[in-house]
Amino acid sequence: MTLTLDRQTAAQQAPERRVFNFSPGPAVLPLPVLQEIQRDLLTLPGVGSSVLEISHRSTAFDGILAEAEANLRELLAIPADYRVLFLQGGASLQFSMIPINLLRGQNLPASYILTGSWGSKAVVEALREGQVHVAWDGKADNFVRVPKDGELDLPPASAYVHYTSNETIQGVQFRRPPAVGDAPLVCDVSSDFLSGPVDVRDFGLLYACAQKNAGPSGLTVVVVSDEVLERCGDDVHSMLSFRRQAEKGSRLNTPNVFGVYVFLLVTRWLRDEVGGLEAAAAGAEAKTGLIYDVLDGDGGEFYVPHAEPASRSRMNVTFRLRRGDLEKAFVAGAADRDLVALKGHRSVGGFRASLYNAMPMEGAERLRDFMLAFRASH
Amino acid sequence: MTLTLDRQTAAQQAPERRVFNFSPGPAVLPLPVLQEIQRDLLTLPGVGSSVLEISHRSTAFDGILAEAEANLRELLAIPADYRVLFLQGGASLQFSMIPINLLRGQNLPASYILTGSWGSKAVVEALREGQVHVAWDGKADNFVRVPKDGELDLPPASAYVHYTSNETIQGVQFRRPPAVGDAPLVCDVSSDFLSGPVDVRDFGLLYACAQKNAGPSGLTVVVVSDEVLERCGDDVHSMLSFRRQAEKGSRLNTPNVFGVYVFLLVTRWLRDEVGGLEAAAAGAEAKTGLIYDVLDGDGGEFYVPHAEPASRSRMNVTFRLRRGDLEKAFVAGAADRDLVALKGHRSVGGFRASLYNAMPMEGAERLRDFMLAFRASH
Repeated sequence: MTLTLDRQTAAQQAPERRVFNFSPGPAVLPLPVLQEIQRDLLTLPGVGSSVLEISHRSTAFDGILAEAEANLRELLAIPADYRVLFLQGGASLQFSMIPINLLRGQNLPASYILTGSWGSKAVVEALREGQVHVAWDGKADNFVRVPKDGELDLPPASAYVHYTSNETIQGVQFRRPPAVGDAPLVCDVSSDFLSGPVDVRDFGLLYACAQKNAGPSGLTVVVVSDEVLERCGDDVHSMLSFRRQAEKGSRLNTPNVFGVYVFLLVTRWLRDEVGGLEAAAAGAEAKTGLIYDVLDGDGGEFYVPHAEPASRSRMNVTFRLRRGDLEKAFVAGAADRDLVALKGHRSVGGFRASLYNAMPMEGAERLRDFMLAFRASH
Repeated sequence: MTLTLDRQTAAQQAPERRVFNFSPGPAVLPLPVLQEIQRDLLTLPGVGSSVLEISHRSTAFDGILAEAEANLRELLAIPADYRVLFLQGGASLQFSMIPINLLRGQNLPASYILTGSWGSKAVVEALREGQVHVAWDGKADNFVRVPKDGELDLPPASAYVHYTSNETIQGVQFRRPPAVGDAPLVCDVSSDFLSGPVDVRDFGLLYACAQKNAGPSGLTVVVVSDEVLERCGDDVHSMLSFRRQAEKGSRLNTPNVFGVYVFLLVTRWLRDEVGGLEAAAAGAEAKTGLIYDVLDGDGGEFYVPHAEPASRSRMNVTFRLRRGDLEKAFVAGAADRDLVALKGHRSVGGFRASLYNAMPMEGAERLRDFMLAFRASH
């Protein structure tokens, strides 16, 4: 190993300059959280081992897991008859776990509302377990908007209705949950989790990978009602069973201990430093507002927004340049100003600025200033 | 957030004393690895973001993933027709993924050799997918040994034969793979992964959770032959499909980026500082030898070893006290000497000293000295 500096030596080096990271996920984390992780990396206070070394059955991790859940319950005002699960495998494993638990063996279809790439991927896995009904599909319109309630084609009964609150790739977001009647509403909240208040009672099950607003990759958070847990089938592999995971309090096997620890620090920061989810929502509105104002400033002559105004995401701003030949110059100019990871997903093209909770206002201001200057100089 | 010290301030504090951590997993990691993680936690060199913030599609992670795999290929001399997968969900999800991919829809049974708790758990999941044949079960003898080849009751043909190279809870380890004929040999190597050389060609599939010798929890490493991949079924959820994961090079969705990074650092340390797997095996032999010598020193009058000598683990040393009333004093005395996490699993009782690669010889020596002194004073 070439690099074996101790804590003292490391500190004598000037820390490298941190860039403004607009990555859609894994994504920017709050600097105070990173600093606390760094400070305690060798020895968690009072423990004498790194958080990377402690048993998931240790008293130290008992405390971490309990506080992580308590913070989430406080931030989202989660009712007592909902469980919080800390799982692995990302949102993609949930695309399978949900139909395995809730569609397998049912005589009802599961209904899916498709507003972008992620919801469309979820359907592929659901089809392995039973009948699927597509209640709305924005693909023909290139996923530029979410449906109005009246546009939904819902069957008389569904095992559940699934939608994606914010489509990270297209930058399309629901302002409020769709009205779907009595079926349990299941929502992939991966990319707008903890970005604003939600009424958990509107949902049967919420799930999010952590690597946008909540922590590092490798951790998935599920919030599920006891009522939905009771509907889950019995013929399910242990690790894929929501009920088994709930019975064992997310410790059916060894969870991602470090991921839960970072989630705890992020939720503490969100509560104590940001001021909770109302404040987070105001911040997201302000930051994305700066960029949308630029996009709207020229009537689509230079910058072309992807999403329709009423469906615009407050997390991921998607746009392209009218002149595609300027894309390389845009990326290079942004990088010169420490603005990185702005390239759009290959399926949409152009650019995407992800402005999660941990992106400081200064990052949004710098991006706005660069975009204005870039337009002025071309 | 109460704790928001910057790098300089953190370094001014004396680091807390690190204990000798005998946890079975998550377990002790090499100090130089922890120091490198700490040093670069805010900004990965040349990247300007934390490793916790980089995209799994970034150039930085391309390099991390490639080097992690290359290091493993070098350490284990993995043949070119084997794939390396970095997955999530621990060994427990493999208990399901293996029969889902290799037993579902087959007309052959899967054969299982049971030498402890983990293999016994694996069988429960396999039964969901097809016919299971137990080729040997050590439960009646309380899992104190592994079988001789002649004791195995193998059917004429098996979809695969599964065994557990080292049973962490019982401290029982195979010295070499069992002779099972033509069926693909599938092995859970979680708790002796990277502790010594193996001939990968003996196996169709090897899997390990990382949190013993290889990294933090939340990462699972699978080494699988192309021949076994071809046998995998098609009717498998994407995230649970070995073939799909292999096609996408472990990036079917976002992997545990931080886990792969730590795995890279651990494998680099193992190669460059430890000197490879032969040296690791010699170290394990020396460290556990110190403790087994204590256990053997009184003919079972004070300390009672769990495993039979020929099946003893070189990772997890399991024993109890003849006088159960002394257990609390043993734990307290050990803790006074910074020797922690020695309590045995509830299913076996007594004590378990896990001496993975990252446990320094000094830890084993201190434990030996304490055990000798404790016996002398009682």
